[in-house]
Amino acid sequence: MKEPLHVAISGAAGQIGYALAFRIAAGDMLGSEQPVALRLLEIPQVVQSLEGVHMELQDCAFPLLQEVVTTSDTEEAFNGCDIALLVGARPRGPGQERKDLLQANAAIFSAQGRALDAVASRQVKVLVVGNPANTNALIASSNAKRLNPQQFSAMTRLDHNRTKAQLAARLQCSVREVKRVTIWGNHSATQVPDVTQALIADRPAWPQLDHGWVEDTMIPLVQQRGAAVIKARGASSAASAASAIMDHVRDWVQGTAPGDWVSMAIPSDGSYGIETGLFCSYPVVCRDGRYNIVPDLAIEEPIRKRIKATVAELLEEREAVAALLKPS
Amino acid sequence: MKEPLHVAISGAAGQIGYALAFRIAAGDMLGSEQPVALRLLEIPQVVQSLEGVHMELQDCAFPLLQEVVTTSDTEEAFNGCDIALLVGARPRGPGQERKDLLQANAAIFSAQGRALDAVASRQVKVLVVGNPANTNALIASSNAKRLNPQQFSAMTRLDHNRTKAQLAARLQCSVREVKRVTIWGNHSATQVPDVTQALIADRPAWPQLDHGWVEDTMIPLVQQRGAAVIKARGASSAASAASAIMDHVRDWVQGTAPGDWVSMAIPSDGSYGIETGLFCSYPVVCRDGRYNIVPDLAIEEPIRKRIKATVAELLEEREAVAALLKPS
Repeated sequence: MKEPLHVAISGAAGQIGYALAFRIAAGDMLGSEQPVALRLLEIPQVVQSLEGVHMELQDCAFPLLQEVVTTSDTEEAFNGCDIALLVGARPRGPGQERKDLLQANAAIFSAQGRALDAVASRQVKVLVVGNPANTNALIASSNAKRLNPQQFSAMTRLDHNRTKAQLAARLQCSVREVKRVTIWGNHSATQVPDVTQALIADRPAWPQLDHGWVEDTMIPLVQQRGAAVIKARGASSAASAASAIMDHVRDWVQGTAPGDWVSMAIPSDGSYGIETGLFCSYPVVCRDGRYNIVPDLAIEEPIRKRIKATVAELLEEREAVAALLKPS
Repeated sequence: MKEPLHVAISGAAGQIGYALAFRIAAGDMLGSEQPVALRLLEIPQVVQSLEGVHMELQDCAFPLLQEVVTTSDTEEAFNGCDIALLVGARPRGPGQERKDLLQANAAIFSAQGRALDAVASRQVKVLVVGNPANTNALIASSNAKRLNPQQFSAMTRLDHNRTKAQLAARLQCSVREVKRVTIWGNHSATQVPDVTQALIADRPAWPQLDHGWVEDTMIPLVQQRGAAVIKARGASSAASAASAIMDHVRDWVQGTAPGDWVSMAIPSDGSYGIETGLFCSYPVVCRDGRYNIVPDLAIEEPIRKRIKATVAELLEEREAVAALLKPS
C-alpha cells in the first residue's frame, strides 16, 4: 500500500465539507489505490459537530481512510498536508458591505496562507473554494512567501461543469461528448462561460449553436445557477460543489483527459492580456501535477468584452484588500 | 458503453438520499463502467426541493449518469427499475406509540411492494432502509406476490461497518484487516453485533479480545451508535448510512470479498432456529447476484440469548402489522 496523502479541509462541518469528506475517503478524488488521511478544520464553535462527522467517517469502515484529525487549530490541520481544500469562508452578514466581506475573508485567508507557508508539505496543492475565491487565493498565496504561487488555485470547476451540462442538454448529447468549454475570470456573477471553442463528439459546437441562446440564455443561466439552486432546494449547492472540488484536484494531480482542458483560477502569467499575478480563471491542461494555460485561442469580441469586465472586478477586489497583500 | 441500470431511491430529498444520489451517479455503487439512471421519489410536499437535487446532479456533469427522473408517483419511480432503495419512511411523531408508527409505515411499504410487483424489473433487487426496516421489508415482500422474497433485503450494513470499525480501533489495526463480523436479528437496539467469529489479518480475533469489553462496551456502543451520532452532530447519520447502502448493494451485485462475509437482513430459511420467512439479519456470502446464509457457525451462549430476544422483537413487530401481510 502507498503512503497516505494528507488532505486538509477547512469548513469541514459545513454542507460542502460534509459532502466532500466521505467521497474523498471513498477514493473518489485520488483513486482506489491511494490511502488518505483527513485533517478536518473548523471554527471552535462547531468542533463538536465535526466530531459527529468524524464518528460517521469511522462508521463507514473505508478501506483507504488511514487517519482523521479534527481541530480548530490551523497549523495542526495544515501540518505536512499535501492537499489543502479551503472551503470555509465568512458569509455575507445582514447589511454588510461587499468591501467589509472582502476584508473579513482577507484576514482569514492571510492567516491560512501563513500557516500553509509554515507547516504544509513543500509540494502542497491549495484549492480555494470559499468566496470571494479568486481574491482569497491571491491573499493566501501572497502570504505564503516560500511556496510557489502556482501551488495555489481557486475553483471555477463547478461553473465549468454547469456549462458542459447546459451544452449537452441543448445539443441533446452526453456530457461525455462535450470538450473544451472555458470559464474566464472571476468566480462571481461576472464570470465568462465560453463555448466558442467547444467540441461535441470532437466536432466544433459553435456552428451548431444559436448564438442568441448562448448570449441571452446560457451565459446568464450559468452565472446565476447558484441562486437558482438555492431557490429550488432551499439550500445552497453542496454536493455539486464537492463534486467539482474532486474533479479539480483529480485533474490537477492525475492530468486532464487527452484532447480536453479544464477551467482553473490561477495566477496570471500575462496570457490573454490579463494582469500578471491576478488569480483569474483560464482554460488549462494539467500534466505531471502542474497546470499550463492553453495558448493562442482566438477570442471572439463579445467574450473579450466580458473578460475585460470580469478582470476589472478582480482588480477592484484586489484594491479593496491591498493592505493584506504582502510584497512577494 | 453498457446499458444503464435503473436505480430508484425513495425519500431522495432527505439527508441520506442527498448523500446517496451523488455517490451512485459518480459510480461508487455499481462501478466506473456502469451507466446509471436515477429515479428519485419523494412525497408531493418536497418534490420542489427534489428538483434542486436534480439541478445539482446535472451540474456535476457525471459521465455515467444517463437520466434523472424526479417524481411523487411510486409507479413512475419503480417502472422497470433494477435496484430499489427504500430510504423514506414515516418518523415517529410526538407522543406516537410504537404500534402506530409500525402501522403508518406498513401502509407505505405495502403500497410500495405492490408497485414494485406491478412495474419493476422481474430481477429487481430491493433494499429497505427506512425504519422499522426488517418489518417494512417483510411487508413490501409480502405485497409483491410475483417477486421472490429473496429479491428483498433490509439494511444492517451500517451496524456491520460500525462493528468492524470498533474492532479495528480496539485492536489497533486497519479496517481492511477485519473480516467475519456479524449483525444478527433486527435493525434496532436489540440487534446483536457478534465478533466471536471475527478474523484480524486472517487470525481469530476472539482470543485477543477482552470479553468483558465486548459485552459491556462494544455491543452497547454499536447498538446505540445512532443516538451518539445525533448527539455529537446535531443530525442523524446520513453520509455513513448512504455509504452502507452502497456497500450492501455493491456486494449483493458484485459478490462479497473472498474469505469474508457481510450482514444482510433477509427472509429466514429457518437457519439457526429462526422462524422461516421472518426478515432477520444473518451473515451471508454473495455470489452471482444472490446471497446465501453462512451455515454451521457455532453460536456462543450469550449471543444465542441475545438472538432469541431480537427475534422475539421481530415476531412482535410482525404481529402488530399482521393485517397488512398478505398470504404469499
